[in-house]
Amino acid sequence: MKRQNVRTLSLIICTFTYLLIGAAVFDSLESDFEIENRRNLRERERKIREKYNITDEHFEKIRINVIKSKPYQAGTQWKFSGALYFSLVVVAVIGYGHSTPKTVSGKLFCMGYALAGIPLCIIMFQSVGERLNTFMSYGLKQIKKCFRLKKTEVSQTDLIFVTMNLSTIIVAVGALIFSHYEGWEYIDSLYYCFITLTTIGFGDYVALQKKDKVQTHYYAFSLLFILFGLTVISAAMNLLVLRFLTLNSEDERRDELEAAIAAQNAVHLEGDVITGNAGVVGNAQERPDFQETLSVCSCSCNKWRSARDKIYGATNNPTRTKSFMSNNVTTTKEDNNSETDSFLLWQRSKRASF
Amino acid sequence: MKRQNVRTLSLIICTFTYLLIGAAVFDSLESDFEIENRRNLRERERKIREKYNITDEHFEKIRINVIKSKPYQAGTQWKFSGALYFSLVVVAVIGYGHSTPKTVSGKLFCMGYALAGIPLCIIMFQSVGERLNTFMSYGLKQIKKCFRLKKTEVSQTDLIFVTMNLSTIIVAVGALIFSHYEGWEYIDSLYYCFITLTTIGFGDYVALQKKDKVQTHYYAFSLLFILFGLTVISAAMNLLVLRFLTLNSEDERRDELEAAIAAQNAVHLEGDVITGNAGVVGNAQERPDFQETLSVCSCSCNKWRSARDKIYGATNNPTRTKSFMSNNVTTTKEDNNSETDSFLLWQRSKRASF
Repeated sequence: MKRQNVRTLSLIICTFTYLLIGAAVFDSLESDFEIENRRNLRERERKIREKYNITDEHFEKIRINVIKSKPYQAGTQWKFSGALYFSLVVVAVIGYGHSTPKTVSGKLFCMGYALAGIPLCIIMFQSVGERLNTFMSYGLKQIKKCFRLKKTEVSQTDLIFVTMNLSTIIVAVGALIFSHYEGWEYIDSLYYCFITLTTIGFGDYVALQKKDKVQTHYYAFSLLFILFGLTVISAAMNLLVLRFLTLNSEDERRDELEAAIAAQNAVHLEGDVITGNAGVVGNAQERPDFQETLSVCSCSCNKWRSARDKIYGATNNPTRTKSFMSNNVTTTKEDNNSETDSFLLWQRSKRASF
Repeated sequence: MKRQNVRTLSLIICTFTYLLIGAAVFDSLESDFEIENRRNLRERERKIREKYNITDEHFEKIRINVIKSKPYQAGTQWKFSGALYFSLVVVAVIGYGHSTPKTVSGKLFCMGYALAGIPLCIIMFQSVGERLNTFMSYGLKQIKKCFRLKKTEVSQTDLIFVTMNLSTIIVAVGALIFSHYEGWEYIDSLYYCFITLTTIGFGDYVALQKKDKVQTHYYAFSLLFILFGLTVISAAMNLLVLRFLTLNSEDERRDELEAAIAAQNAVHLEGDVITGNAGVVGNAQERPDFQETLSVCSCSCNKWRSARDKIYGATNNPTRTKSFMSNNVTTTKEDNNSETDSFLLWQRSKRASF
């Protein structure tokens, strides 16, 4: 079975297992409170209904009315400021649902708007995230130089460490500010920041939804928190997740290359036996593709590695000179093996440096 | 200014402009209805309160009670089935918010669960999506063969076309089924499917939330709709968005390569003037890095292209033999230029075939 199919299958199994475990834990954590809470709420409802002797039909009317009026508790939602907040919540796929389009035209526009806005937003966040990584690696290098450290190179682990810390700081500090302005418990505020920046956006806690007028600087902060927060998360994702996303296509390329190498070995043997060295040269000149593929694999190992060396300062590999030497036309079987080795090394180094 | 900075800056400007336009349109579409709707709701509230003469304090109690009880209208939320639905909604970052953890331990677990679950889910969807693309390109090739078409190769445009259509079919058919089971208008059901599969998940429409017991096959369908739907969307994203995500890092590599080529040209000149050809050979042997980088660029152009040719059947490039010839040690300036050309060609072809 192809390794990319095995990988995909194991990922599916992992996800399903993870979902089942999650369901079991949430069930055990929330069920008791839910039953208790539900009983209390019913009890309170019963008391008030008895007090005013409200009929079922009328209480249902009140219920529907209250739920429909909920978005308007925080004042008009669709003024420009509210609409801007909503637009951001849509394109960043947070989707609190604190206010949603009610008209058919609004719903249709919302779909069209998301269709173009979401890819734009993903690309923007990833692009800024990648710039942020480059900037941070430069900054780190300078700091290391300032402290006169021997190893001034910035490894990917350094970057991941910094991004992770930056994300934690953003969530922690953000939570502090939101809890101050919204009057939430710190843990709830932390939960709000996390649920927002992961773009889950339940909407059980939503900023800027208090009855009293929102201050402009707090409004600006709330929007910038989402934008900057998601950028840093994207920077982390860019380092952590993105390289996994291309594993399968890399394997496809590797399989093709290995097939090409195998094919060349076969042809080589024939060349050696029948026509000797001159024949091999002739052969090689007739089939540039293989030679190219070989020089790709051998050279790109070193190219990718040297590219990474410049950025992350990984140590040079002994196969370098060997694979460089194999760039001449008369390639021997040993060279091919060394090239396969160095290609696999390149695969690893590329994944590590993505 | 570096091209990757220009790209990032223009992306930021685009996104902000897009947000402002969105805000203006949503404002104009929703504001009038909101004002009207709000007045009607207030009027109904006033009538009922007058009828039963409910005090402000008590009506506020009713309001809070009704909003808190809302999740329980659909029966117990945190039984295993509900918790499983919730877990999926979390890891797929849909976050309807139809039911959310209320206990501190529940909130803490939810954060930890999302932290590991979301990357797992992204990687799984992308991996399955990529497999789906490979499978579809194979299927398309077979179909083209069946119809005895001259050009049996599957272009990326073909794939995007098929994935887009598949996504549309899933949303359209899904909407039909949901509108049947949930008793929604078709447009609302369509809106629900779209908002779910884009992972916005407002939660204004949520499946499986009716009072009467949910049939098992409909429950299974709702979960599979999300899983399969998101896989197909990922397949589309894999083709459309993913290649943009690596543009900046590709440019970084390109800049390094161009610098290397420039450096080598300089060294060459010195070699030519002072030591002549032998000197150049000597030079070259002393600095394999440049040679490697050069052979990477020239060869990988063809390697990447030939890799893509196998998959998408792009036409071969005339620079191939030229750049292949330049694999010997004594490289001339012309070769370097041809290599730069073919490297840029490779950049384009790589982006196209990502």
